[in-house]
Amino acid sequence: MSTHKPAKPARPSGRRPGPSGTRDAILSAARRRFAEAGYRRTALRAIAADAGVDQKLIAHYFGTKQQLFVTAIGLPIDPTAVLPAVLRDATEAQVAERLAWGVAQLLGDPQLHERLVAALRATASEPEIARAMREFFPGEVLAAVQDQLGPGDGALRLNLFGSQLVGILMGRDVIGVEPLASLPPDQVARAIAPTLARYLVGDLN
Amino acid sequence: MSTHKPAKPARPSGRRPGPSGTRDAILSAARRRFAEAGYRRTALRAIAADAGVDQKLIAHYFGTKQQLFVTAIGLPIDPTAVLPAVLRDATEAQVAERLAWGVAQLLGDPQLHERLVAALRATASEPEIARAMREFFPGEVLAAVQDQLGPGDGALRLNLFGSQLVGILMGRDVIGVEPLASLPPDQVARAIAPTLARYLVGDLN
Repeated sequence: MSTHKPAKPARPSGRRPGPSGTRDAILSAARRRFAEAGYRRTALRAIAADAGVDQKLIAHYFGTKQQLFVTAIGLPIDPTAVLPAVLRDATEAQVAERLAWGVAQLLGDPQLHERLVAALRATASEPEIARAMREFFPGEVLAAVQDQLGPGDGALRLNLFGSQLVGILMGRDVIGVEPLASLPPDQVARAIAPTLARYLVGDLN
Repeated sequence: MSTHKPAKPARPSGRRPGPSGTRDAILSAARRRFAEAGYRRTALRAIAADAGVDQKLIAHYFGTKQQLFVTAIGLPIDPTAVLPAVLRDATEAQVAERLAWGVAQLLGDPQLHERLVAALRATASEPEIARAMREFFPGEVLAAVQDQLGPGDGALRLNLFGSQLVGILMGRDVIGVEPLASLPPDQVARAIAPTLARYLVGDLN
């Protein structure tokens, strides 16, 4: 499963990163702008101005606007990279198998886990973060996987998929309900994988 | 679907309620005590003392400790009353049918909806509320339906069931992601009912 860790952002150019202060300034400005204006209405130009850097440095450190958002908002994985690979040339059962593996990796990584919970708490308590999240997901993620989803409304399929993942993280990590919270990641992943696969490519009715 | 609205609590005796000030004082004391000490360690005696009322009044207005908790915490339905009826003498497909109906009622009621969202926000942001929720659900709800659940760990089945419901409410009402947030309740309910039924009585692996 491809990940975007904030400590090692995508650097298409392969050059060494500049001082970490510059990177942190961009992230701070991005979090503030995304929180204030949401994903869609935030311009990289404005983030660059707030951070006092050339806009090219944003691409250098973070890649695209969506990659910057994923890093700034605290999402540990980039669903636009992971989901197409999960769905490629696969039956519903195969999608479930791949998801059982991928979700187990996700739930088993303590660092990813922490960042997901932080993102969830922010989403639940900050309406502006919730707005940024709801603008990001239908658009960017859907564009990446639209042709690989099952029939009907692809955005709804992604919503349902996200709802089960969010619910598991709420139960395990925010509420901490037992036995779910202590269940080994692979067992949680196996239990929810058929649901996730159905939402993406199966029968919704 | 049986409901517990805060404005009309269960009154086993059928007598008229006393002044609403008394009822509100009990609810305030209960919310504070449950938040401070969690569900298990909160005594009705202490709530009565905080509210300055006789403990018998709590039973009069709210019924049992768990009914008081359900009302105080903002849960609009009592799962210990609803779930046994959903599961009674039913196949997995029948459970799914009943859940599709019941969840549609739940999602379609604007008052229930508001209270669920408030409970969710509180759970996400208040660790003490999260603790009360996680103590309440495994115990009281499991005791009510244990014999009707599928094989294996019944508490885990309820956790998974709750995770999908919580995720849907997060997506629809807290995050507000489209098209999920605007989808008619019966369509949402039909999409998730097979998942909910599987978690309660079906195959988890």
